[in-house]
Amino acid sequence: MQNLTYLHDIPFSEAWKRLEEALDKVGKWSILGIEEIALDERAIDRILAEPVWAKISSPHYHASAMDGFAVRSIDTEGADSTAPVILTVMTQAQYIDTGDALPGWAEAVIPIENVEPLDECGNLTEYARAPHAIRIRSSVAPWSNVRPMGEDMIASQLVMPAGHRLRPVDLGAIAACGHATVRVSRRPQVAIIPTGSELIPVGQPVKPGEIIEFNSIVLAGQVNAWGGIATRFSISPDDFEEIRQRVQIAAQNFDLILLNAGSSAGSEDYSAAIVKELGDLLVHGVAIRPGHPVILGLIRYDIGSKPGASDQETSWVPIIGVPGYPVSAALTGEIFIEPLLAKWLGRQSNNPARIKATLTRKISSPAGDDDYVRVAVGQVEDRILAAPLPRGAGVITSLSRADGIVILPRGSQGLPAGSEVEVRLYCDHDEIQQTIFSIGSHDITLDILAQFLPRLNRRLSSANAGSLGGLLALKRKEAHFAGSHLLDTVTGEYNLAYIRQYLPELPVVVLSLVGRQQGLLLPKENPKGIRDLVDLTRHEIVFVNRQRGAGTRVLLDYHLGLMGINKETIRGYDHEEYTHLAVAAAIASGRADCGLGIAAAAQALDLDYLPLYNERYDLVIPKIFFNSEILAPLFSVINSAEFRQVVSDMPGYDISVMGHIIAELP
Amino acid sequence: MQNLTYLHDIPFSEAWKRLEEALDKVGKWSILGIEEIALDERAIDRILAEPVWAKISSPHYHASAMDGFAVRSIDTEGADSTAPVILTVMTQAQYIDTGDALPGWAEAVIPIENVEPLDECGNLTEYARAPHAIRIRSSVAPWSNVRPMGEDMIASQLVMPAGHRLRPVDLGAIAACGHATVRVSRRPQVAIIPTGSELIPVGQPVKPGEIIEFNSIVLAGQVNAWGGIATRFSISPDDFEEIRQRVQIAAQNFDLILLNAGSSAGSEDYSAAIVKELGDLLVHGVAIRPGHPVILGLIRYDIGSKPGASDQETSWVPIIGVPGYPVSAALTGEIFIEPLLAKWLGRQSNNPARIKATLTRKISSPAGDDDYVRVAVGQVEDRILAAPLPRGAGVITSLSRADGIVILPRGSQGLPAGSEVEVRLYCDHDEIQQTIFSIGSHDITLDILAQFLPRLNRRLSSANAGSLGGLLALKRKEAHFAGSHLLDTVTGEYNLAYIRQYLPELPVVVLSLVGRQQGLLLPKENPKGIRDLVDLTRHEIVFVNRQRGAGTRVLLDYHLGLMGINKETIRGYDHEEYTHLAVAAAIASGRADCGLGIAAAAQALDLDYLPLYNERYDLVIPKIFFNSEILAPLFSVINSAEFRQVVSDMPGYDISVMGHIIAELP
Repeated sequence: MQNLTYLHDIPFSEAWKRLEEALDKVGKWSILGIEEIALDERAIDRILAEPVWAKISSPHYHASAMDGFAVRSIDTEGADSTAPVILTVMTQAQYIDTGDALPGWAEAVIPIENVEPLDECGNLTEYARAPHAIRIRSSVAPWSNVRPMGEDMIASQLVMPAGHRLRPVDLGAIAACGHATVRVSRRPQVAIIPTGSELIPVGQPVKPGEIIEFNSIVLAGQVNAWGGIATRFSISPDDFEEIRQRVQIAAQNFDLILLNAGSSAGSEDYSAAIVKELGDLLVHGVAIRPGHPVILGLIRYDIGSKPGASDQETSWVPIIGVPGYPVSAALTGEIFIEPLLAKWLGRQSNNPARIKATLTRKISSPAGDDDYVRVAVGQVEDRILAAPLPRGAGVITSLSRADGIVILPRGSQGLPAGSEVEVRLYCDHDEIQQTIFSIGSHDITLDILAQFLPRLNRRLSSANAGSLGGLLALKRKEAHFAGSHLLDTVTGEYNLAYIRQYLPELPVVVLSLVGRQQGLLLPKENPKGIRDLVDLTRHEIVFVNRQRGAGTRVLLDYHLGLMGINKETIRGYDHEEYTHLAVAAAIASGRADCGLGIAAAAQALDLDYLPLYNERYDLVIPKIFFNSEILAPLFSVINSAEFRQVVSDMPGYDISVMGHIIAELP
Repeated sequence: MQNLTYLHDIPFSEAWKRLEEALDKVGKWSILGIEEIALDERAIDRILAEPVWAKISSPHYHASAMDGFAVRSIDTEGADSTAPVILTVMTQAQYIDTGDALPGWAEAVIPIENVEPLDECGNLTEYARAPHAIRIRSSVAPWSNVRPMGEDMIASQLVMPAGHRLRPVDLGAIAACGHATVRVSRRPQVAIIPTGSELIPVGQPVKPGEIIEFNSIVLAGQVNAWGGIATRFSISPDDFEEIRQRVQIAAQNFDLILLNAGSSAGSEDYSAAIVKELGDLLVHGVAIRPGHPVILGLIRYDIGSKPGASDQETSWVPIIGVPGYPVSAALTGEIFIEPLLAKWLGRQSNNPARIKATLTRKISSPAGDDDYVRVAVGQVEDRILAAPLPRGAGVITSLSRADGIVILPRGSQGLPAGSEVEVRLYCDHDEIQQTIFSIGSHDITLDILAQFLPRLNRRLSSANAGSLGGLLALKRKEAHFAGSHLLDTVTGEYNLAYIRQYLPELPVVVLSLVGRQQGLLLPKENPKGIRDLVDLTRHEIVFVNRQRGAGTRVLLDYHLGLMGINKETIRGYDHEEYTHLAVAAAIASGRADCGLGIAAAAQALDLDYLPLYNERYDLVIPKIFFNSEILAPLFSVINSAEFRQVVSDMPGYDISVMGHIIAELP
């Protein structure tokens, strides 16, 4: 079925050019319109459609810059501490508040602090307003303490160019030079039509196969943030006729249609056919990953039915078929929708800050696509590191957790670990300096840490690589600490033997974080009556194991050895999963009858749990970071009563050794 | 009057500490409240009041990642190109769309592209849905092309910590793990009360002494941008009783009161007295510049009259007396209001990106204050430069034009030119790289350039230093070009002699920008009948001159010489102003009867104008920039028909030589 009708990906630049040319041809490759709006706080973030020129000067008169007396500078000449000068009020000096207009005869102001009353006066403020004469002990130069007319802006000068995005202080400047309104570009109206019979709205209970529809919320949020006005349609089932009608309605009322999804080439992907029927299909498939089944097209509509129509009979509205996977959908927003809205608003397209970073892991990439790799970014010692996040287009957390994007252009088949890459940042630069990078075994206590740290200006970015993977990452200087629970089967002690073996030369502190239970995860109500590891050898029991190098695998092997159980007799011993949760999921979905893991994993998927062992989960911290500013807040959290309370409230956790220094090695 | 009741400035840190302690004491030093709001695009930019934990896993079932057939991987073993395997549909293979749930018996998916139909079939899509058997030529591993339950998020895991500001993709992640609402911090309600009998609202005609009230708009824009909800009161006159009543009303209904201004110690500055009467005056005067007359206080209010009141009888609302000068007001917003709102919202306070830059000019600073110096920032060759903008607290354009702030802490009395400073950036880093720095003589044509350049991703930041000042700045490598119109009185040629003298070793291109008229600026209807330079010697005529080094001064002296007029005979020849507009302002305000300048200055202040000379205004461009990427858009604009049309439409401008290369020197 290679020849099944399928999309043909074209490079991004080519796709964009087709859209630009098509919109240019129908007169929609410029700002959509101009609105004149009141100059108040609602104008914030609007884009100037025209330059602003000063209507009046600011100040529009010679204004006193101080509370004091307006004078002629010539009358003050010669005044000094030993030779005071007396000025007659009314003719030579006139009281003036800050901002008041200078009398025509004056061109300088003496601040009130520099004026002496001529007689003792109970109420000095009153005296300042109505004295007969004042005494001064220093002269003033012409135009001293005066804001001359036009000091700030001069009538007719350029105040702000077109295309400028209005900030609060800009409104002040525009008001100061005499405007009461601003002419800004009209905000594009964007229709978002979610389609798919499998979709259900946010907030309803879900059954397997049903997908929570949230792409429209993400797209609407993007459109609004980028200056458009989003309208979300209700979910349409995969019904050609219904989708066609909605697209037609949207074309009559909106500037842009986002159709999500149905843009691929599956049996229920109608988007391309609908665009062909209602207009021009410009692009079906763009060589970007994730996101390749993007559709770009124009929908024809009858202009007569639109208010304010010209005598032209038909016009065209662009439509973007947005892929269904959430990461693809959000990236389609950034790549196509943002620049289009920028064009229509007359502003520059967003240009994220860029930073050079070192890749912590190898990336493989399809040679034919621009590959958008989401990364976490942090600084370990003096290196900025970019840690690739999960690649799946369905993993929305790979975007919400991303600090930036690395683009591997078409032609690249990937990059080895250690490569220098350019990251387009989603976060501010200072957030990177506040990021604690951790790697290794995952424990839910790290989630709790991540929740407490932001109050102390730190973010925790943790990658799950297993205990041993964490130690090896420390060796490569890719993390500030590693979580580890590796049992030394000879001594019964945790972690130390492994650290001696794998990090013989790296000075580290081993800090106990928490004691936790390991036990058997079982289907609800334990239908097969499993009571201990011996039951794993029963023929009807299917086990699910953790991968080699995982602390939990080490623990299992240790206890099997102690009990003299032969691994070969355990069905499923070779079925390896990489996380506690994956083990739990295998049991929850009926693929296995039990596995070894932590209580939280059982609780997460509503499984039964049989506690068996207590183990210690440590943080292995290079000494160079142990007393560093970056980690200080981590220890504050670990030592806080509130954090300890939250952890000890979780099932299967013991905080009695929390924060103890177990060893300093080597 | 040194002993007039006056404010006593305290350091910023001390002022902030007093506010913190006072608010902590009344239980208002934490988030103000929690709201549960719908999970949709309106939640963008709200701050999570609590961490988000996954309610369900995502995906919440094993989902197909492709359109294809669900299979057991074991059934596909051994399939290769020479030994295809046939699978029976229903029992061994089941058609499945992307996102569909896997049947319980399957754990892998074969993409439809890798499946062969067993017979020729006209409609392959239909065949895919209802075949009897399929043929495959490659095996699949378990869980291939499947998104296992929990691939993205696992029920119970931390998805986002409290304090996080919601972005569009975050809403997707929160929806995907089963939430329909989010718990966010309540937005603080902020009352903004503008006071001052001299204030008039935006949009009304102004008379001397009247000030357009726009601080409330700037403050409201800031408050809203920082997550609060601003309510602007109408302008209150300087009436103690009326302001007192408004403050009391605001205390009953708002979380924060901003009283603008009346915070100084002038005769009509009531703010401090009102705060004392209605509550506690914590701070009156902070050692920051601009902005020192800041008031911080608490207002007592009767809680019984507030809905949802506890049994406590009174409570307290903070009040900030915001200084009246617009720059002071906006900086008070950044320094006091933003961190307070951040605290109340439970988010981190804004932390602008910082950059090291070299000061282009000396800064003098009062030793007692933290001095907030607004700067324009640009890069010339490999140096980042910070050019101080006008220092006046009334110059709002010093904020709207600022790319950042340099803070000179208390104790510093200033910095010499060439110092390295840290700039807190208002703009994005990439905007700096797009900034063209110009310096020298100002001409309105530069404003027009500034208006056209943003379309080509450039910003023009121009400083007025006079023609000679511009050449000297080029020598110090502080600009990309200088505008100059220096007449060589020996040859009658412009600029070249000066460049040879002042830039003997710097290779430059002299590009003609525009020809322009210089002439006499005169009061409306020229009451003293001035007709040429000879009239300047008439006894009743007062002249206003430009400073030494200005091109216009050189021009005047040249023509006086040609005409044999003795400078000593001109009244006001020694009265120097620094810009065309300052000359115009001197005439408009009656201080002088005429001056030499450009037509635009006369037009700006509605003066009469008598054209006398044509001169050439050139751009002097170091060769190193002449062919650079940074300036390429400048030449595109200069050569564009649209730009030339706009310039030639202005009175007194001649574009016949625009863009001609006059000389390359040395």
